[in-house]
Amino acid sequence: MNFQTLSEHRCFGGVQGFYQLDSAEIGLPMRFAVYRPPQALAGEKRPVLMYLAGLTCTEETFVIKGGAQQFAAEHGLILLAPDTSPRGTGVEGADAHWDFGTAAGFYLDATQAPWATHWRMESHLMNELLPGVIDAFGGEPTRTGVFGHSMGGHGALTLALRHPGRFASVSAFAPIAAPSQCPWGHKAFGGYLGADRSTWARHDATELVQAGHRCAPILIDQGLGDKFLAEQLHPHLFEQACLAHGQPLTLRKHEGYDHGYYFISTFMRDHLAHHARHLGLGAGQGA
Amino acid sequence: MNFQTLSEHRCFGGVQGFYQLDSAEIGLPMRFAVYRPPQALAGEKRPVLMYLAGLTCTEETFVIKGGAQQFAAEHGLILLAPDTSPRGTGVEGADAHWDFGTAAGFYLDATQAPWATHWRMESHLMNELLPGVIDAFGGEPTRTGVFGHSMGGHGALTLALRHPGRFASVSAFAPIAAPSQCPWGHKAFGGYLGADRSTWARHDATELVQAGHRCAPILIDQGLGDKFLAEQLHPHLFEQACLAHGQPLTLRKHEGYDHGYYFISTFMRDHLAHHARHLGLGAGQGA
Repeated sequence: MNFQTLSEHRCFGGVQGFYQLDSAEIGLPMRFAVYRPPQALAGEKRPVLMYLAGLTCTEETFVIKGGAQQFAAEHGLILLAPDTSPRGTGVEGADAHWDFGTAAGFYLDATQAPWATHWRMESHLMNELLPGVIDAFGGEPTRTGVFGHSMGGHGALTLALRHPGRFASVSAFAPIAAPSQCPWGHKAFGGYLGADRSTWARHDATELVQAGHRCAPILIDQGLGDKFLAEQLHPHLFEQACLAHGQPLTLRKHEGYDHGYYFISTFMRDHLAHHARHLGLGAGQGA
Repeated sequence: MNFQTLSEHRCFGGVQGFYQLDSAEIGLPMRFAVYRPPQALAGEKRPVLMYLAGLTCTEETFVIKGGAQQFAAEHGLILLAPDTSPRGTGVEGADAHWDFGTAAGFYLDATQAPWATHWRMESHLMNELLPGVIDAFGGEPTRTGVFGHSMGGHGALTLALRHPGRFASVSAFAPIAAPSQCPWGHKAFGGYLGADRSTWARHDATELVQAGHRCAPILIDQGLGDKFLAEQLHPHLFEQACLAHGQPLTLRKHEGYDHGYYFISTFMRDHLAHHARHLGLGAGQGA
């Protein structure tokens, strides 16, 4: 993987770094962040846990606001935070909407012009960035986890369901859980995948479970004060599908919590413990 | 206190809020942030711990990057984060420098024109915001702590030393510990206080200790990879003064850590435990 270091900072006994890759899949430079825990700095191969952020975010958002490094240091997890879309594409209209185009890649490969050239986030993550980070940052090749928030929760669920066996642990905060049935999903899937709804189903977590896809047991946290809950997120539809089709899911609902990182950071400890457990790491030194 | 609520968010069982005060001391609206832990929401009077941020920061910086709410929830501490200077003053040149004027109030009352009109941060904090927050947010009147980072570490040390008995607990991350002997301090004190260096001594932590001022036992953490350490911070001068004059100080030095919030958040748990102990709160549920 051909990448350069932008900055590195000591953090909870490990190193939080920011890097830039010349992405062959995207055709442009792509930024990403990696946290290496003390165990990795000492030379141990450790599992990589990838976090996918939501609309408008960058590779920095989770790193600054998530509060995950302390728990990654306890469990010995390498954290990978990619960016949310290609940047600087020059595609007309790419910056016109906050919920489509730049910072709104939805973690899939677009099939429609003009998006198909650069908007190849699924291939970027699965074929290039994740294996490249595992190789370059001392990751353990066989144990990998994925989680995310909102659009990134959609990404975590769909990538885990679309790539059976690739992720040993899966979780999400307030995911877009049935994108074919909400305005954000209509706009993204219509633009990136076209009008044929049969192609949408292959990137919709609820429809993937209904079609027989399975992944590791899922933890989802959802705030009940989330202003996007009723119109955009639909966790109840995903819950019904998981129940009907035997996909293990724990869906927790939290009175008063909203859609932002004050909610996410509150439950970060639980998510990293969930990943550590399913990655076979035990309880962690500080847990 | 005449203030309005800008936003509130559930966070670690408590509420993180942002507010705006019509400040009589500053003569302009001033923003501030308050975290109320679960114990305060349940109606208990709890100690207020005030955090003073560094150059270029706002009332949001600590709230987003510090990772302190989880420990405040454990110990039952109310966190107060003020802004770092007046805003929108219309004073010519106020926005011309990143280390003087806007976002660089140095937590003192300026005596020199044109700054003396609005740059009254010490009076704003001590006479108005801190008592107002204690009153309006369920604070315990007699137990209060203060800490801060860089310029805000200077603020925490000097306010504690200048107001004996007001703060039962004091700490700092990478403070400007001898401002009369560094470029940031020369610029700020020269501009706000004028050329007479005898007035500078009353706002210089090292000189205050040398002049006989005392406060509660101090915890300071300092990264040894901090690019400002040699020229701007001078913790060794403060350490020498404390040793010579009997001011209790624990100065910890950390290999490789820099000046930013990846450093600060790493040691936040220790600082909140220090404050809880000196505020007489015991170890906290999760410590």
